[in-house]
Amino acid sequence: MSSTLQLSLPDWISEYESDDPLVSDEDAMRLAIELSARNVKENTGGPFGSLVYDHKTGKIISLSVNRVLETHCSAAHAEVLALLLAQQKLGTHDLSLTEYSRLTLVTSSSPCIQCFGTLWWSGINRLVYGATTGDVEKITGFQEGPKDHNWLATLPSRSPLPPIEIIAEVLRDEATQVLKDYVTSGGLIYNPGTSPE
Amino acid sequence: MSSTLQLSLPDWISEYESDDPLVSDEDAMRLAIELSARNVKENTGGPFGSLVYDHKTGKIISLSVNRVLETHCSAAHAEVLALLLAQQKLGTHDLSLTEYSRLTLVTSSSPCIQCFGTLWWSGINRLVYGATTGDVEKITGFQEGPKDHNWLATLPSRSPLPPIEIIAEVLRDEATQVLKDYVTSGGLIYNPGTSPE
Repeated sequence: MSSTLQLSLPDWISEYESDDPLVSDEDAMRLAIELSARNVKENTGGPFGSLVYDHKTGKIISLSVNRVLETHCSAAHAEVLALLLAQQKLGTHDLSLTEYSRLTLVTSSSPCIQCFGTLWWSGINRLVYGATTGDVEKITGFQEGPKDHNWLATLPSRSPLPPIEIIAEVLRDEATQVLKDYVTSGGLIYNPGTSPE
Repeated sequence: MSSTLQLSLPDWISEYESDDPLVSDEDAMRLAIELSARNVKENTGGPFGSLVYDHKTGKIISLSVNRVLETHCSAAHAEVLALLLAQQKLGTHDLSLTEYSRLTLVTSSSPCIQCFGTLWWSGINRLVYGATTGDVEKITGFQEGPKDHNWLATLPSRSPLPPIEIIAEVLRDEATQVLKDYVTSGGLIYNPGTSPE
C-alpha cells in the first residue's frame, strides 16, 4: 500500500519558468491563460491554468495546469496544484506567513467548490480569476459544485482568518475562448459517475 | 521551480496495513481512530485519521493521517490523503468507476469545507464520520470553514452526480477523546494567519 502521493505537471511547463517579474494582475492572467491553452494543445489535461505570484514584487512562485485524468487524481485542479506547489516551495502550510505580503492565486477560471476549500486554508492573500463559474458550466459541461450560498463573498470578509481579496473576470473573454477550444477539440468532460470514453 | 508535488505518510502507518477484511463501519472507525491517536502519540501530525475501504468486501484500500505541518501542505488533511491515495492505488480519478461498489471514506472527525470539496469530486460512494464539526471546533479550536448552508445534506441527494451515503457519529465518544488528548498534550492549532510556536 503506497504511503506517498505524487502529482506531476507536464514537462513543457518548465518553458514558462522565469525570473522576470510579472508587472500586473493582467500580465499574470495572460500567462495563466497561456498555460491553459498549452495544456489543451498538448493534450496534457483540462483547459485550466493557474499560478501563484507576489503582487508586490511580481515574483512567480508556482505554475500549474489541470492534471485530473493524467494523474488519476480528482483534486489535481490547476488551482490546488498552484497553491500546494507554492507551499512546498516556500516551506510552509500557510502562505500568509511568508516573506511575501501579496501572494496571489491567478487562475483562468473561477474556483470550484474544492478549490474554494483549498483556498480557505492556504493562507493566500489574493485571488484573481478570468472566466466565471457560469462560463465553465455552460460552455464545457464541467460542474463546479454546490455554490448556492454566497460563497466567494465570504473570502474578503472572513474573520478572524486573514481576508482574501478577489479580483474578478480579468481577461474573461480570452479565458473563455480556451474553454470553447477545449470543447471544439473533443476534450473530455469528467464529472464523477461519468466514464470518459 | 518544482513541478512535482509529493506528500508522504509517517513510516509507522505500514504497521496497520492488512489483507484481513474490516467487518463493519464500526470496525473501520475503530481503526481510523487508532490511526488518529497514534499520530498524536508519535507527534507526526494533527489528531485526525482516515481510511478508504469497500463496505461490501471489507477490503482496505488506503490509510492516512493528518500531515499539514509535517509536509508544509494545508491540504494534507487525513480525508484528502485517504481519497487521493485510494485513487492513485486504483488508477482512477473517479472512485465510482472501480471494481468496488461500496467504497467508503471513514474519518475520525467530520470533514471540513476543503474535505467536503474533495469528497464532492472523488466518486466515493459512502462517508462515515465520528466526531462532529462542533466537537472539533469546541475542543481543539481548529476551524472547519463556512458551513452555514446545509452542506453535508447535499451529498446523499445530489443529482445527476452519484449520491454519497452518510453514516454520522460512529464511535463519536472515542473519536472525541483523541481530540481532547491532542489539546492536553499541547498539540498545535494551525488555522491560517496563526503562526505555530
